[in-house]
Amino acid sequence: MRDARLEQPDEADPAPQSGEDLAVRFAHVRAATERLCAPLSPEDASAQSMADASPAKWHLAHTSWFFETFLLEQHEPGFAPFHPAFRVLFNSYYKGVGDQYSRPQRGLLTRPSLAEVLAYRRSVDERMQRWLAKTPPQPLAELVVLGLHHEQQHQELLLTDVKHLFGCNPLLPAYRECRESAAAEVAALGFASFPAGTQRIGHAGGGFAFDNELPRHRVFLESFELATRLVTNAEYLAFMQDGGYARPELWLADGWATAERERWRAPLYWQACDDRWQVLTLGGVRALRPDEPVCHVSFYEADAFARWNGARLPTEAEWELAAGSAPCTGNFVDDDLLHPAPAPRIGADAPAQLFGDAWEWTASAYLPYPGYQPAAGAVGEYNGKFMSNQMVLRGGSCASPRDHLRASYRNFFYPQTRWQFSGIRLARG
Amino acid sequence: MRDARLEQPDEADPAPQSGEDLAVRFAHVRAATERLCAPLSPEDASAQSMADASPAKWHLAHTSWFFETFLLEQHEPGFAPFHPAFRVLFNSYYKGVGDQYSRPQRGLLTRPSLAEVLAYRRSVDERMQRWLAKTPPQPLAELVVLGLHHEQQHQELLLTDVKHLFGCNPLLPAYRECRESAAAEVAALGFASFPAGTQRIGHAGGGFAFDNELPRHRVFLESFELATRLVTNAEYLAFMQDGGYARPELWLADGWATAERERWRAPLYWQACDDRWQVLTLGGVRALRPDEPVCHVSFYEADAFARWNGARLPTEAEWELAAGSAPCTGNFVDDDLLHPAPAPRIGADAPAQLFGDAWEWTASAYLPYPGYQPAAGAVGEYNGKFMSNQMVLRGGSCASPRDHLRASYRNFFYPQTRWQFSGIRLARG
Amino acid sequence: MRDARLEQPDEADPAPQSGEDLAVRFAHVRAATERLCAPLSPEDASAQSMADASPAKWHLAHTSWFFETFLLEQHEPGFAPFHPAFRVLFNSYYKGVGDQYSRPQRGLLTRPSLAEVLAYRRSVDERMQRWLAKTPPQPLAELVVLGLHHEQQHQELLLTDVKHLFGCNPLLPAYRECRESAAAEVAALGFASFPAGTQRIGHAGGGFAFDNELPRHRVFLESFELATRLVTNAEYLAFMQDGGYARPELWLADGWATAERERWRAPLYWQACDDRWQVLTLGGVRALRPDEPVCHVSFYEADAFARWNGARLPTEAEWELAAGSAPCTGNFVDDDLLHPAPAPRIGADAPAQLFGDAWEWTASAYLPYPGYQPAAGAVGEYNGKFMSNQMVLRGGSCASPRDHLRASYRNFFYPQTRWQFSGIRLARG
Amino acid sequence: MRDARLEQPDEADPAPQSGEDLAVRFAHVRAATERLCAPLSPEDASAQSMADASPAKWHLAHTSWFFETFLLEQHEPGFAPFHPAFRVLFNSYYKGVGDQYSRPQRGLLTRPSLAEVLAYRRSVDERMQRWLAKTPPQPLAELVVLGLHHEQQHQELLLTDVKHLFGCNPLLPAYRECRESAAAEVAALGFASFPAGTQRIGHAGGGFAFDNELPRHRVFLESFELATRLVTNAEYLAFMQDGGYARPELWLADGWATAERERWRAPLYWQACDDRWQVLTLGGVRALRPDEPVCHVSFYEADAFARWNGARLPTEAEWELAAGSAPCTGNFVDDDLLHPAPAPRIGADAPAQLFGDAWEWTASAYLPYPGYQPAAGAVGEYNGKFMSNQMVLRGGSCASPRDHLRASYRNFFYPQTRWQFSGIRLARG
Repeated sequence: MRDARLEQPDEADPAPQSGEDLAVRFAHVRAATERLCAPLSPEDASAQSMADASPAKWHLAHTSWFFETFLLEQHEPGFAPFHPAFRVLFNSYYKGVGDQYSRPQRGLLTRPSLAEVLAYRRSVDERMQRWLAKTPPQPLAELVVLGLHHEQQHQELLLTDVKHLFGCNPLLPAYRECRESAAAEVAALGFASFPAGTQRIGHAGGGFAFDNELPRHRVFLESFELATRLVTNAEYLAFMQDGGYARPELWLADGWATAERERWRAPLYWQACDDRWQVLTLGGVRALRPDEPVCHVSFYEADAFARWNGARLPTEAEWELAAGSAPCTGNFVDDDLLHPAPAPRIGADAPAQLFGDAWEWTASAYLPYPGYQPAAGAVGEYNGKFMSNQMVLRGGSCASPRDHLRASYRNFFYPQTRWQFSGIRLARG
Repeated sequence: MRDARLEQPDEADPAPQSGEDLAVRFAHVRAATERLCAPLSPEDASAQSMADASPAKWHLAHTSWFFETFLLEQHEPGFAPFHPAFRVLFNSYYKGVGDQYSRPQRGLLTRPSLAEVLAYRRSVDERMQRWLAKTPPQPLAELVVLGLHHEQQHQELLLTDVKHLFGCNPLLPAYRECRESAAAEVAALGFASFPAGTQRIGHAGGGFAFDNELPRHRVFLESFELATRLVTNAEYLAFMQDGGYARPELWLADGWATAERERWRAPLYWQACDDRWQVLTLGGVRALRPDEPVCHVSFYEADAFARWNGARLPTEAEWELAAGSAPCTGNFVDDDLLHPAPAPRIGADAPAQLFGDAWEWTASAYLPYPGYQPAAGAVGEYNGKFMSNQMVLRGGSCASPRDHLRASYRNFFYPQTRWQFSGIRLARG
Repeated sequence: MRDARLEQPDEADPAPQSGEDLAVRFAHVRAATERLCAPLSPEDASAQSMADASPAKWHLAHTSWFFETFLLEQHEPGFAPFHPAFRVLFNSYYKGVGDQYSRPQRGLLTRPSLAEVLAYRRSVDERMQRWLAKTPPQPLAELVVLGLHHEQQHQELLLTDVKHLFGCNPLLPAYRECRESAAAEVAALGFASFPAGTQRIGHAGGGFAFDNELPRHRVFLESFELATRLVTNAEYLAFMQDGGYARPELWLADGWATAERERWRAPLYWQACDDRWQVLTLGGVRALRPDEPVCHVSFYEADAFARWNGARLPTEAEWELAAGSAPCTGNFVDDDLLHPAPAPRIGADAPAQLFGDAWEWTASAYLPYPGYQPAAGAVGEYNGKFMSNQMVLRGGSCASPRDHLRASYRNFFYPQTRWQFSGIRLARG
Repeated sequence: MRDARLEQPDEADPAPQSGEDLAVRFAHVRAATERLCAPLSPEDASAQSMADASPAKWHLAHTSWFFETFLLEQHEPGFAPFHPAFRVLFNSYYKGVGDQYSRPQRGLLTRPSLAEVLAYRRSVDERMQRWLAKTPPQPLAELVVLGLHHEQQHQELLLTDVKHLFGCNPLLPAYRECRESAAAEVAALGFASFPAGTQRIGHAGGGFAFDNELPRHRVFLESFELATRLVTNAEYLAFMQDGGYARPELWLADGWATAERERWRAPLYWQACDDRWQVLTLGGVRALRPDEPVCHVSFYEADAFARWNGARLPTEAEWELAAGSAPCTGNFVDDDLLHPAPAPRIGADAPAQLFGDAWEWTASAYLPYPGYQPAAGAVGEYNGKFMSNQMVLRGGSCASPRDHLRASYRNFFYPQTRWQFSGIRLARG
């Protein structure tokens, strides 16, 4: 049984110490977004495969809109917008800012062109760097950092949205060549034990956190066990072969109805080819590997798998307790696999693979922490207004930037969501 | 600041001590259901106003189906079904039992007639009474009690479904004459304080509870305040007059989208008549009374009202902590008003109106308690499979039977639900 | 080759000669409607199985509304409405009269009760008879006759709507006992030939006709052949066994899309039972009879069958030319079978079964005749505003009153309609 | 009163006399398609604004697919497909050829890129030219001509689809600069008279015609009058100002329901700007010109306007009779306005503007002519299977190639269609 942390602050992501640091970080994050678009043609960058996804071009523009609207418009001397229509066109959902262009029609914005959007980025970058050079006061620096984390979130969405777009194309194009992880013999699934007690969760310490990670607060956790790694494709296949998609007693009622309506028979991006399964990856179509973590499952599938297994999904507090003492290392976008990799063989009784590879569905609904206060102004719409009907995911994925994650990070999606890199970790007790 | 209970068991609803008690109780609950149908014509009892509602006749039959399927079919010597088709026709959602007739088409079942359904009830009643006379062993007696609580839930649904049906009819018929509560001067809204600490919630003691109230377990609650009564129509009108339905910053994103799509401008059953508001009640159309609790609001509206007020909704644990030491008294179906009544003027710092009047939306998603286990067999589908996408409501309403409620009782509906007697209690901290 | 008529007026349905005749006819038609409701319980009479159908109670009320609104309200001295709300409640689609109650919600009108609606009918009947006793002038007498034909149309709809309602009920109740037609050996399908030439179609002569049958006008018809009887179940089964529902090349594009979406595999009301087909009739479930005309097929199915057969559907002008010289006799509601009967064996080269049994889909879209003028006032909405997207059917069915039909009668439904008694006659050339 | 033609063959579009002529024509038509795409960016060419429209890139590919599938695959020695997946990807609706890629998802085909599709075109062009050099036998030459007319149809669709796409973009981009027609004083609306009689319609003579224009056959037309020009914006504005969109008595029932649901208040592409109307054209946003023909109206709007005017729409036979003796001249795509132009002032009693400017909605449903036979094989799906639920339009538009049109040409769209260049000509009698 492992010692659980209490009051141990997150150390990750210290806030930049100076305007200069901030400028460097700004340049770094902004460049990363554009690098992700390099393999895309103008057409690839402009299409939208479903209402939940956005064109890469829109991600490029919206992340710039964030800085132009929330910082330059308020604080740049002699501010003039790059294009007056962009204020509406690239507003995602900030009603405090004003109108928004219809979300499901983002793929129709063939103008501005990709080149114009890149020019928009350059303009915002130059104006931001000029402005950062004068070392903005702390609250504004924090807003810049928020904008950079916002951009990192969109970097991950950009990848999952491109993957979905290519998955709709019978040619099944690859996003680009991707190195594959080495085949591995995955250790048998173990469980680490945690004793009952009052714990603290939520962000602590001086680094950046979203408002939804605050305030740090006490929770009582009954004793529980947490699986030592993610569920693998091999294990998920066993569930399928045992009739997992045909046995309503394993499913939540809403999940069963969704699976029936959508005719789910396997995770998203799996396709049967002769007698074998293939998966679509950002690196192209590959044979399904039994050693890799299962991915692109909905909360409903994760929950049904857990029930079939005699286990359950962990709550977010359980997960955070276990992750609080773990280093934030793993298979991130920085590793360039763009696909989950087999669990490393580490200590048998410690949960591994907590960060990276695949977001882990928790059993927790996305709700405000006790005493939660959204940020003031339109930016307060960032997180708080989505606190209904969604489930929390933890730990980041192979498409997340490493320096974007931390133990207290709360991601959230609707339970039917499958196009994110979402996987399964089991819990018991 | 009030003392909160810890480890104080529920005393309500002691289990019947003998088969004879059970037979008496069976007769009592079954008769109550039929009394509720007395004001209905065969047509009234057969129609279905929306997929979420059911015809009164269907409620009459389905509650009998429960006893026939889960008890008689298993345990009656020489069992023969009343009608072989009823097993499918009146199965609500128990996939473990087999097929179900299409839910949104229940209003098309003009056959069996109301008279035939009443004959079905008589047959089930007689066979159950014969069987109960031999004093069934404890686990089966508990199943009978479950069936009776199931029937009481359907009694409330029967009333809310009839109200919805009549609300769709431009003639706005009354269900029957109903006595009105006396006009009252409602005390100003106060808040009772509760200190932080580890508490226990969930059902304790020997009486009946649904599986979703178990196991009793510890939670840590930060200090909080709970409003001393329900929100009134007068207070809700102030929200409306302050633009409550037109200010997106007050709403959850899903709530705003729902309110826009459904064109919500007031609670369900409110209708503007010249310059005044009227409300449809089971007793007919009445002028809106400022002193009555607001009712027939969705979770989204309750949440938006709370945000406008600078408060929030309580969690279910907070509510249960406060209610645990309160007597289960209030305005129930037994009081025959069939409409919420003004709060009584009691001690200024103690939460009143916790039971009856209107179900209270909580800020808690309907999720399993730590260690939750659904009952074995098809009856295990009763509660557990609905543990996603719904919100918990507490306390019962003017349409609930008094002996059906208790402090640990968890009701649950989707956040957009408005046709139940659902109201608002505020919390802070 | 048969001689085709030219300028031969319809003789059917002479207008009543006096107020007394009219009063007798009024009483006769009104009583017939109520006789059709005799087998129905209040619940049966109140339910609505789909938006296209109406409850029997609604038919009873709406046909009374027609007389109250278009005659009594205008011409009865000291007119007072039976119930002020009925003007809206039982207005079908006459925007010139004012608002209408929502069509898909007619099944929610459990009030007024069936008894109240019958009282409404009695009131309208008495007031109409008092008014008819004073011999209304000719234009008003014609409006009464229109109201009676309107009521006869609703008699047929009442039967088809009840059949559809019962078809949604797994108990498959019979409307009432119905005599079955004698088994018959049906003659091989022959074709009667008609030469090319200019013909006249549309209503001629002094009897009643709807405005859409006018004006009588000339059309040029190329030579053609018309089948001597309706297509039988046996013939339709051969189409099915030849893959009729699985071969897109036989279908119109819209028809194929509809059949796919609705998963049509056989006509409506056919159900496979072990290895045999059964059909739901108003007299209950019966084994499919090969000698009976196929019925309850959509235009799309009729068209696909014809294409498979190397034939086509007739135009309405071709049909009317052939029917103009035929007596208006056949299997009507008066014959009390309430189901199509095998074709009689008559002259091999003359089209038989033109009237009664099943409405015959034509290849003609429902469009205005050259010079068509709708009647003045709200009653002008009766036919004209539906002249788009629908197809013409001719000849009446086993659910039509005999004295309601004539050769120039144009019925019309959307091409996907299946719940009417609609069958197939082939043409060639 | 004008003499109507009888038996006067179409002279337009003589079939190419030799393989060489055909090769020249092939090159000409194919080049024209690509010229239309010149103003489009790869993004513009790849997006799809609604299920009815297709991306320009898809038009480029599908028109090539037609030649590759129906000619090269059958007749090219040593045929190998350019890309094996294209057979499915660019099949529009030919079930005889096999599967089709999902129509509403054509905008997701960011691959193949525009450049690859242009390479596909070059490959098809080269192989076709090689094959044409050997002078294919007559039936195959006719199939080539069909393919070229098919491509010309897609040229027009390409323009209307791009216009729709740009109309969804708040930036309202222009397709390219377009010359505007000169302002004109439009003559008062006159009517030309035609006597009753038997006429012939349908294609006659030796040139190309689609199968749906055949066979030429006789119709009887009662006397009628046909308006001398198209309805102007000024006239349509008068309808709007007279409450045209708010008076149900002017509308077909299906039209009214559509207009309500879609909230139509003006033709498509009209937008109110302060107190004036602007229209989106392919040349950008312009002030509404009263002298131009109204355009982008549905059949329902055309029909309502005609009823308001005391007139009606012509039948297709009436239109063809009038157009048969008129030269096929007018404002076509060749004139490069890409927008309807005011009617020329010609003889007061002769219908002008019959060809070009705007397709003219007729009162005729799109149905087969007597004796119609679709072409054999998959190419027989071209026209015949769409002969339900659509209305015929005649005369071509400012986006049609001049040498593509003729008097017997039948275009067809659903009555709610508005994104085509569709206008109104009145008829009477």
